[in-house]
Amino acid sequence: MTAAASLEMLNVVGTFAFGLSGAMVAIRRRLDLFGIIVLAVAAGVAGGLLRDLLLREAPPEVLSTLWPMAVAAAAGLGAFFFAPFIDRQWRPVMVLDAVGLGVFAVAGCDKALAFGLDAPGAVLLGVMSAVGGGMLRDMMAAEVPRVLHEEVYALAALCGSAAYAGLRAAEIAEGLAVALSMLLAFAIRLASVRYGWRLPRARGS
Amino acid sequence: MTAAASLEMLNVVGTFAFGLSGAMVAIRRRLDLFGIIVLAVAAGVAGGLLRDLLLREAPPEVLSTLWPMAVAAAAGLGAFFFAPFIDRQWRPVMVLDAVGLGVFAVAGCDKALAFGLDAPGAVLLGVMSAVGGGMLRDMMAAEVPRVLHEEVYALAALCGSAAYAGLRAAEIAEGLAVALSMLLAFAIRLASVRYGWRLPRARGS
Amino acid sequence: MTAAASLEMLNVVGTFAFGLSGAMVAIRRRLDLFGIIVLAVAAGVAGGLLRDLLLREAPPEVLSTLWPMAVAAAAGLGAFFFAPFIDRQWRPVMVLDAVGLGVFAVAGCDKALAFGLDAPGAVLLGVMSAVGGGMLRDMMAAEVPRVLHEEVYALAALCGSAAYAGLRAAEIAEGLAVALSMLLAFAIRLASVRYGWRLPRARGS
Repeated sequence: MTAAASLEMLNVVGTFAFGLSGAMVAIRRRLDLFGIIVLAVAAGVAGGLLRDLLLREAPPEVLSTLWPMAVAAAAGLGAFFFAPFIDRQWRPVMVLDAVGLGVFAVAGCDKALAFGLDAPGAVLLGVMSAVGGGMLRDMMAAEVPRVLHEEVYALAALCGSAAYAGLRAAEIAEGLAVALSMLLAFAIRLASVRYGWRLPRARGS
Repeated sequence: MTAAASLEMLNVVGTFAFGLSGAMVAIRRRLDLFGIIVLAVAAGVAGGLLRDLLLREAPPEVLSTLWPMAVAAAAGLGAFFFAPFIDRQWRPVMVLDAVGLGVFAVAGCDKALAFGLDAPGAVLLGVMSAVGGGMLRDMMAAEVPRVLHEEVYALAALCGSAAYAGLRAAEIAEGLAVALSMLLAFAIRLASVRYGWRLPRARGS
Repeated sequence: MTAAASLEMLNVVGTFAFGLSGAMVAIRRRLDLFGIIVLAVAAGVAGGLLRDLLLREAPPEVLSTLWPMAVAAAAGLGAFFFAPFIDRQWRPVMVLDAVGLGVFAVAGCDKALAFGLDAPGAVLLGVMSAVGGGMLRDMMAAEVPRVLHEEVYALAALCGSAAYAGLRAAEIAEGLAVALSMLLAFAIRLASVRYGWRLPRARGS
C-alpha cells in the first residue's frame, strides 16, 4: 500500500471513530435516529469544515467529496443498531478516536502549510481540525466540550501538529514526517488515558 | 404575481416565522429586549449566513441586503409586545415555520447547484440552510437543538431539497421544480405534526 | 504616540481583557489549564475571526498575525495563576473589557466599511466583532451567552459602531471618528454598569 493510500485509510478510520463518538453522545441524550446521524456527521466532519472555511477553500472538501460524510453517517447508523454493544467497547473506540486525532491534526497542519500559513498558525489550524468536531458535538448536546476538561486530548493534537511543522521545517521527507508526528499524537493520547495524566486546575476554583 | 415575486414573498414569510420562533425561545428564557431581537435575527438569518459562508459568497447576502435581518428583527419586536398572544397561536406559527423550512431548503439547494456543487452536496447545503437558524437559536439558549429530537423536521427539509435536486436533474422547469419540492417539504412537516410521526430511538438508551 | 499605535495598544488591552473573561468562566467551570487557555483564546479572538470569515479575508488575521492569540493565551495563563486575586478585581477587569468592547466594535465597523459594505451591514459587523468572542465563550461553557441577558452590553457596541459609521459618512477625520465612537461605546457600557441600566423583558414571561 502506498503512503497516500495508507493516509486515506487512516483518515476514514478517524472519521468513523469520530462519527461513533458523536452518535454515542446523541444516544445518551436520547435523540432520535436523525439526531444521531446529524451528531455523528457533525463530530466526523466539522473539524475539516472549519479548516476549509478558515483556508477559504470553497466549496469545502466535505461538500464536494462526500465520503467523509458518508463514513460518519454510517458510523451513526451502526451506533443506532448496536448501541449497547458499542457502549461496552469503549477501549477500541478510544483507540480509533486517537488515530483520528493524530490524522486530523497532521492533515490540518499540512494543508495550512501548503496554503502558505506560517508554522504557528498552521499548528493551531491542525489542532482546530482535530478537536473542532468533538467541540461542535458537545456544544450541540448542550454540554461543556469534553476536550476542554478531559485528559490530555487537545494537547496530544497540539504535539502532533507541532511535531509535523517542526519536521517539515527540518526538511524531513513528507511521508516520514507524517508517520512520526501522527504516531506521537497517538502515543501521547493513549498514554494519557492509560496513566490518567491530568493537567492542573486553578487553585481556589 | 410572477414566480420570482412569489418566492421572495414566501422567503419573507419564512424569515418572519423563524424570527418569531427565536424570539419565543428568548422570552421563555427571560432574556431582555436585546436578547430577544438577537435570537430572532439568529434564528431568521443564520441558515442563509452559513450557506453563503460555505459557498464563499462575500459579503454574505445577509450583510449586503438587509431585509432578512430587518424582517427577523421585526418578528422579535412583535413577539416582545405580543408574547402571550403569540404563545397561544402555536398552530399558525408552526404553519409559517413549515413554509420557511420548505423555502430555505429549496433556495439553499438551488444556490448550491448554481454554484456548481454536485447534487449530494447541494442537497445537504439545502438542509443546512433550512435548519441552521433553529440550531443556532437553541445552542445560544444552551439547549439541545430541537431539530435533533423533535418530530420529522430536518427530514422534511431533506425531502424537499432532494426532490428539488432530482427534479432539476430531470430537467423540469425551474418554477415547477421549486413549487413541487417546497410543497413536498411543507406537506411532510405538517403531516408529521398532525399525525405525531416520530423517528425511532436506539434500544437500551 | 501616533494614533495607529494608540489604537493597536487599545486593541491589545481589549484582547487581554476578553481573554481574562474567558479564563475566569473556565476556572469557574473547573476546567483544566488547557481548557482555561482555550476559552481565553476563544473569548479573545473569536470576534475578529468571525469578522474576517464574513469579509472573506483568508487566512483570517488571527492565524496570520499571532499576537492576538498570544495575548489572549497570556491572559489565560495569568488567570490560572492568580485566579483568586483576579476574581476580586472585577471592577478593573470590567473597565478593560469595556475598552475592548469599544475598540472591537469600531475596528470591525471600519474594516467592513473599507471592504465596501453599506453602513447598516458594517454597523452589524462591528457589533458581531465586539460580542462574538463573549458569545462563543459562554456557548462553549454551555451557558446562555451573558451578552443576551446582562446589562446594556451589545447595545453599547451597537452605539459605538453606529456612531463610527455616522461620523465617517459625515466625513469626519478617521482619527477623531475612531476616538469619539470608541469613547461613546465605553461610556455607555460603564454607565450601564454604574447605574444598573436594564432593557425591558416581555410581559408574562
